Amino acid sequence: MKYFSEPDIAALDREDPLARHREKFELPEGVIYLDGNSLGPLTTAARLRVAETMATEWGDGLIRSWNTHDWIDLPAAVGAKIAPLIGAAPGTVTVADSTSVNLFKLLAVALRLRPERRVILTESGNFPTDGYIANSLATLLAAGHEVKAVAADKLAGALDESVAVLLLTEVNYRTGARLDMRALTAAAHAAGALTLWDLCHSAGALPVELVGAAADFAVGCGYKYLNGGPGAPSFVYVAPQHLPGLRQPLSGWLGHATPFAFAPDYQPHPSIEAMRAGTPPILSLAALDAALTVFADVDLGAVKTKADRLFEIFAGTLAALAPGLELLTPIDPAARGTQVSLRFADAYPVMQALIARGVIGDFREPDILRFGLTPLYLSHAEMWRAAHLLGEIMTSRAWDQPRFHTRAKVV
Amino acid sequence: MKYFSEPDIAALDREDPLARHREKFELPEGVIYLDGNSLGPLTTAARLRVAETMATEWGDGLIRSWNTHDWIDLPAAVGAKIAPLIGAAPGTVTVADSTSVNLFKLLAVALRLRPERRVILTESGNFPTDGYIANSLATLLAAGHEVKAVAADKLAGALDESVAVLLLTEVNYRTGARLDMRALTAAAHAAGALTLWDLCHSAGALPVELVGAAADFAVGCGYKYLNGGPGAPSFVYVAPQHLPGLRQPLSGWLGHATPFAFAPDYQPHPSIEAMRAGTPPILSLAALDAALTVFADVDLGAVKTKADRLFEIFAGTLAALAPGLELLTPIDPAARGTQVSLRFADAYPVMQALIARGVIGDFREPDILRFGLTPLYLSHAEMWRAAHLLGEIMTSRAWDQPRFHTRAKVV
Repeated sequence: MKYFSEPDIAALDREDPLARHREKFELPEGVIYLDGNSLGPLTTAARLRVAETMATEWGDGLIRSWNTHDWIDLPAAVGAKIAPLIGAAPGTVTVADSTSVNLFKLLAVALRLRPERRVILTESGNFPTDGYIANSLATLLAAGHEVKAVAADKLAGALDESVAVLLLTEVNYRTGARLDMRALTAAAHAAGALTLWDLCHSAGALPVELVGAAADFAVGCGYKYLNGGPGAPSFVYVAPQHLPGLRQPLSGWLGHATPFAFAPDYQPHPSIEAMRAGTPPILSLAALDAALTVFADVDLGAVKTKADRLFEIFAGTLAALAPGLELLTPIDPAARGTQVSLRFADAYPVMQALIARGVIGDFREPDILRFGLTPLYLSHAEMWRAAHLLGEIMTSRAWDQPRFHTRAKVV
Repeated sequence: MKYFSEPDIAALDREDPLARHREKFELPEGVIYLDGNSLGPLTTAARLRVAETMATEWGDGLIRSWNTHDWIDLPAAVGAKIAPLIGAAPGTVTVADSTSVNLFKLLAVALRLRPERRVILTESGNFPTDGYIANSLATLLAAGHEVKAVAADKLAGALDESVAVLLLTEVNYRTGARLDMRALTAAAHAAGALTLWDLCHSAGALPVELVGAAADFAVGCGYKYLNGGPGAPSFVYVAPQHLPGLRQPLSGWLGHATPFAFAPDYQPHPSIEAMRAGTPPILSLAALDAALTVFADVDLGAVKTKADRLFEIFAGTLAALAPGLELLTPIDPAARGTQVSLRFADAYPVMQALIARGVIGDFREPDILRFGLTPLYLSHAEMWRAAHLLGEIMTSRAWDQPRFHTRAKVV
């Protein structure tokens, strides 16, 4: 891998077409933030919008704001902003609940479309919540459904006539490895199965092509690369051919065709809005809506290209300075998302030592250092500096102090 | 009903022990807000807290705030504040998702505890989402479950050995009528059924006694009488005897015993926190947490007593001035919550005319004027003035103008 010199880095930052977005983010002084894949940072747009939502919309508008500030259609409006980021057509994305809850809804929808099949196929090592939810649904249905998890390279071979739905996360949360959505969706369809893609680590990070890949369903997270704020609501995608007659089991009143008729019988909204359940958390939704304005003129292809360069800088520097860190993330740019994962037996104290020096990444059990590459607010120089700080910590064994071994509640 | 004179009213306000809370709310000038049963108003505490959560916790703390600002335990902390308001023991309440989603979880838990029974019994005229969710769960289970809705006075008679769970809303959203939680729970238990109480229109409005009534499960809303902000998360209660082995179907990662172990198998948290699913919307949750500080030294018995007085003022004035408005809410204070519902054929334009005069209530299909009685920020004089404005509108037929007939999206 290439080792970048300081003049190389300075030139990259001078010519960076994405550098102009940095000023939209309110990052603390002295921090290099490499955890935007876990919680995206605050934008000025979100801060101002939430203050306005609190004081003007809620405070002054009170109940009237459901109409006057169109809170009622905010999930659809946010969905419309997300759709182009994930290669979805207008009217196929809305925002509701959490990723876990939306996985439940969509798996139920998918199983209903394949009533004669009993297998939910997923990748071993997928984000746990996906498997937890799939197993719970299988248990609840008590109809012999089974969740089968196989390694990535065994997925295509495991697609047979028993598989109702292939449930995959495009970019793996631990390794950053990216699955081939197009090929796997085609393989699933060839076997008569549907696909449900978890885009938590893709949306806002790289170009996603749901329509291009002919994906059936997708969910994703508002609080990672989309910068929607802690616990921002999740988005949900249903391909156009599955929209007519769409029925999901969390049929709360705001997914009803006419919620304010207060009809005794549930009639699903004749659109993607049928995926809504209860009243959405407007403050959190407003923050996400505002944060998405940053993406209005962003080319996600350029974002991935810069993220690949940041990857090379980080991984290349560490290959030279700290060969004891094992690179888990694929070297091939097409085979990965926008993170770097490094394995080291004492990863936990290493990450604590790095955070103490102002570089924030995160740790994943049992031995992974994880770094998010977020080109809208990271410079090449920051990436270079972060790699050098980590290299120094490794060389000097600065991590090996008792204070860095103390485990926090959330790791 | 008694008709209150202006001096009566002035005396009531002078002696009002709850008047001191009014300054904690940021109500717009010139508005008498009688819709706190739909969306509670902004408190200064919530406004300041959300600004702080945005700038300091999210902006500066970034991902670290899951630990340093204890976001991870915020649902439990908010649950601990709600527990005493609903007569629940510590450790039996948490906050997650929406009321609709929590109804689904709890109904699934209840049905699992009564595997040989097939009926979910509810009241006809219950809030629609309760029935929608119950029916969806029955459909999903495909095991012959049935949702049976009967009138309030037929509930006790309908409790037989087929009933798994009695699903009731304590205070009816349309009429304000209050069910006898203690008696109905006892009747359900005598029939071997469990009870699930929807407290959306009770929590924060009047003393609720979940333990006293021996209720099994409860849910409720954060954005009505608790003033948590638009779409604030919902609370969920599980009686202590049902906590061991508690398993609910929306088994997202944050309900796991050790979410950050990222274990492949779901192990429910050995507490009420097993009711959590995905990542909670922290901004909305922070607003609710702050709004609840208002209740720290509030006696809900005193709140109900003042609400009953506000009821008398409003209903008594209108009985005298506008006898064409039919009172739907029970006269007996023990048989109602803290709202006034009036029936009138042209209720929609009447409400619009009233809102145009600065008195905000709401309309419910097809012919109901609905007013929330919220003693923490309403004075007796406001109630008196609101009743007189409504009386004038009725007497002068001021509502009968085309502009008041135009329907808004949300009514």
